[in-house]
Amino acid sequence: MKFELTKSFLAALTDAIREQDAQFILNEVAMLHPADIAEIFDRVTIEEAKFIYRQFDEELASEVLVELDEDLKESFLASLSNTEIAAQVEMMDSDDAADFIQTLPEDRKDEILSQLEDVEHSSDIASLLTYDEDTAGGLMATEFIWANANWTVAEAMENLRIQAQEIENVYTIYTVDDYDRLLGTLSLKTFLYADNTTKISEIYSPNPISVRVTTPDTEVAKIMEKYDLVVVPVIDQAGVLLGRITIDDVVDVMREEAEKASQIASGLSEKIEDNDSIWIISRARLPWLLVGLVGGICGSMVIGGFEVQLSKIPQLAFFIPMIAAMGGNVGVQSSALIVQGLANKSLSYDSTFSKILKEITVALFNGAILSFFIFSYNYLFGLELALCITVSAALFTVIIIAAVMGTLVPLLLNRYKIDPALATGPFITTMNDILGMLVYFTISYWIFL
Amino acid sequence: MKFELTKSFLAALTDAIREQDAQFILNEVAMLHPADIAEIFDRVTIEEAKFIYRQFDEELASEVLVELDEDLKESFLASLSNTEIAAQVEMMDSDDAADFIQTLPEDRKDEILSQLEDVEHSSDIASLLTYDEDTAGGLMATEFIWANANWTVAEAMENLRIQAQEIENVYTIYTVDDYDRLLGTLSLKTFLYADNTTKISEIYSPNPISVRVTTPDTEVAKIMEKYDLVVVPVIDQAGVLLGRITIDDVVDVMREEAEKASQIASGLSEKIEDNDSIWIISRARLPWLLVGLVGGICGSMVIGGFEVQLSKIPQLAFFIPMIAAMGGNVGVQSSALIVQGLANKSLSYDSTFSKILKEITVALFNGAILSFFIFSYNYLFGLELALCITVSAALFTVIIIAAVMGTLVPLLLNRYKIDPALATGPFITTMNDILGMLVYFTISYWIFL
Repeated sequence: MKFELTKSFLAALTDAIREQDAQFILNEVAMLHPADIAEIFDRVTIEEAKFIYRQFDEELASEVLVELDEDLKESFLASLSNTEIAAQVEMMDSDDAADFIQTLPEDRKDEILSQLEDVEHSSDIASLLTYDEDTAGGLMATEFIWANANWTVAEAMENLRIQAQEIENVYTIYTVDDYDRLLGTLSLKTFLYADNTTKISEIYSPNPISVRVTTPDTEVAKIMEKYDLVVVPVIDQAGVLLGRITIDDVVDVMREEAEKASQIASGLSEKIEDNDSIWIISRARLPWLLVGLVGGICGSMVIGGFEVQLSKIPQLAFFIPMIAAMGGNVGVQSSALIVQGLANKSLSYDSTFSKILKEITVALFNGAILSFFIFSYNYLFGLELALCITVSAALFTVIIIAAVMGTLVPLLLNRYKIDPALATGPFITTMNDILGMLVYFTISYWIFL
Repeated sequence: MKFELTKSFLAALTDAIREQDAQFILNEVAMLHPADIAEIFDRVTIEEAKFIYRQFDEELASEVLVELDEDLKESFLASLSNTEIAAQVEMMDSDDAADFIQTLPEDRKDEILSQLEDVEHSSDIASLLTYDEDTAGGLMATEFIWANANWTVAEAMENLRIQAQEIENVYTIYTVDDYDRLLGTLSLKTFLYADNTTKISEIYSPNPISVRVTTPDTEVAKIMEKYDLVVVPVIDQAGVLLGRITIDDVVDVMREEAEKASQIASGLSEKIEDNDSIWIISRARLPWLLVGLVGGICGSMVIGGFEVQLSKIPQLAFFIPMIAAMGGNVGVQSSALIVQGLANKSLSYDSTFSKILKEITVALFNGAILSFFIFSYNYLFGLELALCITVSAALFTVIIIAAVMGTLVPLLLNRYKIDPALATGPFITTMNDILGMLVYFTISYWIFL
């Protein structure tokens, strides 16, 4: 059933490894799911992982290799000979094999491909390697079951028995014409219950949803999600069936997209994991911090322009963080909805103008409540009336400006093909800080004139 | 193939509807995928959608209903009679039917269930309605193919033909014992190529990965993602097979989780869509804005405590937004990684202490660069040396404190079973604002003493 990695299991395992107890590995580890074994490998040292790995038979070894994290995969690959790797690759599905070989240096790739005994498998992998990783071609596997539309059910059955030997999961039977162009799909169920003399052309469903080999992986994910597909066929420009993509590979794409968006919104300039090196993490963070710093300098110049004002009424400074923070918060709230809508294409079809109008209405409402709140607080605690009015008026204005900016900026970025997720991050906060100061001190200037 | 909703198509469609041209609907709309039709319904008025809908046959009508957005679904349901709805429900899979009936008022639910002709279907749906929506029970469908382990392949084939009549997609054959307890799975391929006299017990794969009917939906998503499953069986406490969950339903759960996390991080207190009403959007935003406002008041009190200092050196105010913003940015960067790691359970197994140590190292590095940068800038532009030192020292300290807070807060929230995503939002920014002011003015107090 489901495996739960406990501390006591890990302790027993490391004990067994120290005592070179291969039997423990075979009894307690080898029967686990490869994904669970990969999890164990994450928790032990490389040397311990290698000891465990050496006890596995070839099939399990190759299944575990596919599941490993990038980092671990690389250090494993470095310690295996080309012949050993070739033996593993032989047993993998073409898509896993291509992903796997992809991580190797150029010369090892060729060497391993040339060592594969199954020449067809080798050339399938080689052709998969030519596709861009971020496209349907980079995701697809070349293992699928197909039948020519002109065959009878009996002829197809004959052929399918041979094809099926190499394929673990049969999802659907693809129907093709004499030029291997995709015509449609045929469910296993329909096929099984059809008469032997029936032609495939009479029973298949035409107009299948398919993707082009050059379709970006994120687009493939959207299509599979929209149409609730478990598997989607991949065709080339001429409509020739090249392979199929299963949903499990697409789930990874979706997960990565979501993480990328949230990292961009958090001010990281490249995708990082929490176990990346200090240097990589620092590098990913610095760019947006520099942007924030330059924004801070602009802010200081704005306030500097009102130095006279500030020396007259030093209390003005008390509310600088509040005005800045509220501008940032409102901006992020507004942009978050737009960015999300753009990402999953669920954005309503209202015009930009009516979206902004709606945002302004929400901002008027929230701004009024918050301004009233802060006015009451300040007034009750004996702040000078002019200052009370200044703070409330500035807060109100900043909330409205921030809402408009939060709506406009992601839409503009998107129009110019820049990832709108940028707009939920430090970008919008920094901009709203500067605008906020300008508004706050300008209003104070008018009121205290 | 793939349908692209164009403006010209929409124009032609609305023209056709105005002229009550049912033929256009049948020729141009009825052959589309239900998901595409649902998209069209989003773009036309309710009245137009209803006109289109009335032209569909019952099967297509029910497929389209399932695909509709919540809002649209409700207004459609309101305009259909119980008998009409019952006719649609009759044709849906049990999970879709249950989701669908769920949205209706209590009395209509019972009425519709009692009108279903297929009593088994009706009782399946009724039992699905008893499960919590956010659990495996709420996601599963009761349609699956099963075989008793004691049957021969020939006996199973006989049975399967009957079972398969009601089931569209056959993913796998579940093997059960005499008490309907799940024993394992059997791939269609193995089944098809087995001898007629072979017992099922000899060919099925034991130890299937399964979920309990009470397992939370997010946990189901993690399990299916980890083990790359397309379908997972659902069992009760006693191990009895109750249903199965397919990956397409789980993809929706994953999408919602990701959106929820990003909305929390953006300072929204409930999940909203960009087409929600102004009132709902305002309500979702106000709570965190109030938190920000109260944080701002605290910040003003901190600065107020240094009023004398501030009247002596009004230039101190220039850098308030910068110190506040950098604390916020660094805090969000640090917490984002932790929150993401907690969400997908990929957090490294380092201790909290070593995580914080790593954060501090990154912060020392970035803090040094940024402090040096701002020191040089301020010094070159003729700022008083003491102020240059104050700003740089405060920036450096704030960056380190923010990094520690950004790491600690989500881990603490998680320990106390509060959603750690809260920590990437206004929460951490507000806290760092206040701490930042305290640090900044305390340092200035020391330096200018």
